[in-house]
Amino acid sequence: MTARYYADADLPTIGSGILLPVEESHHLTRVMRLRPGAEVRVFSRGREAAGVFQGTEGKQALIVLSGFLSTPPAPRIAIHCAVPWIKGGRTELVLQKATELGVAGVIVFHARREVVRPSGDKLDRLRRVVLEACKQSGRADVPGVSEATDLASAISQAAVGPSSSFVLYENERHITLGQAVARLDLQNSSPAVLLASGPEGGFDPQEVEAVRHSATMVSLGPRILRAETAPVAAVSAVLALAGEF
Amino acid sequence: MTARYYADADLPTIGSGILLPVEESHHLTRVMRLRPGAEVRVFSRGREAAGVFQGTEGKQALIVLSGFLSTPPAPRIAIHCAVPWIKGGRTELVLQKATELGVAGVIVFHARREVVRPSGDKLDRLRRVVLEACKQSGRADVPGVSEATDLASAISQAAVGPSSSFVLYENERHITLGQAVARLDLQNSSPAVLLASGPEGGFDPQEVEAVRHSATMVSLGPRILRAETAPVAAVSAVLALAGEF
Repeated sequence: MTARYYADADLPTIGSGILLPVEESHHLTRVMRLRPGAEVRVFSRGREAAGVFQGTEGKQALIVLSGFLSTPPAPRIAIHCAVPWIKGGRTELVLQKATELGVAGVIVFHARREVVRPSGDKLDRLRRVVLEACKQSGRADVPGVSEATDLASAISQAAVGPSSSFVLYENERHITLGQAVARLDLQNSSPAVLLASGPEGGFDPQEVEAVRHSATMVSLGPRILRAETAPVAAVSAVLALAGEF
Repeated sequence: MTARYYADADLPTIGSGILLPVEESHHLTRVMRLRPGAEVRVFSRGREAAGVFQGTEGKQALIVLSGFLSTPPAPRIAIHCAVPWIKGGRTELVLQKATELGVAGVIVFHARREVVRPSGDKLDRLRRVVLEACKQSGRADVPGVSEATDLASAISQAAVGPSSSFVLYENERHITLGQAVARLDLQNSSPAVLLASGPEGGFDPQEVEAVRHSATMVSLGPRILRAETAPVAAVSAVLALAGEF
């Protein structure tokens, strides 16, 4: 497959040129060592085009577009994930899988029982993981990655409403995710859900109490899922229930 | 939580003793350094009991059972996975996640486009990963891990029938996994499915042709899922569609 590069801007019309971001340009010229005349693909904001590498302007590679390409349609349901920082590169794993599966965006938050203290550039690293997963999975849109101070802020940032915001809570025994999703009007014009999952040690009960008015607690069955398993399972479940799988 | 040990035998009656396997006994006496009188939990074949460590007989720890405990019920649908060898510890990751999610068994097979050549003791390693995931997730039954020479053998080993054997095939465009599952009679006494997924480079077309009479090809949507993502997403999807999530 022809290498795919991310433009980070609206694609111009066919025959026009676009300058790639510096990091993408570096990969094209230094890692892949492409020569002017090489055919590449450029994607951004849901669109993708074939193009030809013309040369560089400063540190940026110039691509002239030759034709638009079809892209996989986004799921009709917009799935947002709120994921805590998890140790051992597991937040990265969740974001990689969530991106492949087609989520619209991810909010990384600080859980009360957080084990790791991520440094500032961790968010940049997550964005690179997400971009890489877009390239690998064929996505032409890049899900947004933002940060929130806590679970409550993550839920309010997502702004999908209490009946569409689901907290995967291991102490919830009454409602499963599937039952909660069945109550939604998935046929409306643009359904959206938020799936929030907990850290290694699970949610702190007070953390959950603080969001009872802004979200619905749901169960993912009687087995204890690891912190990185629950969000991936929940995204897959919602896609299946919404008819996307 | 009290440490859980695997007995690898039917649990005896309350008040009776059971000897743990050597590896589990080693963990109890050498790693955890438990003393006679310590309270433990013992699980095997779907049952779990509280018990007291009495001491060792040779290399085996003797546990006398004090009372049975409730265990999470297995999903009503028995999900079997056929997973190829994938490099970078990714087969292990799939088996860990599948065990947490509640699968009944896993068959590891050699795909035509297999990248790794696993050595003989790899299967033992996978069984340890599965056992560890049982302990962590609270399962009291241990899914079987077996090996097959190829995809066709894996499907015939699982023996769930052509309409319940699904091959996750990226070139399938017509039927999604959800549509195929919707055709099944999930209300029958003991529904079972097989979910077979491919290696890094996807299935070889001939490999898929060879099983068209014994399985149904299904799609998991328009995005390209990594070899370790597809089986986990498919298990989660089936659990959701069967009402388990």
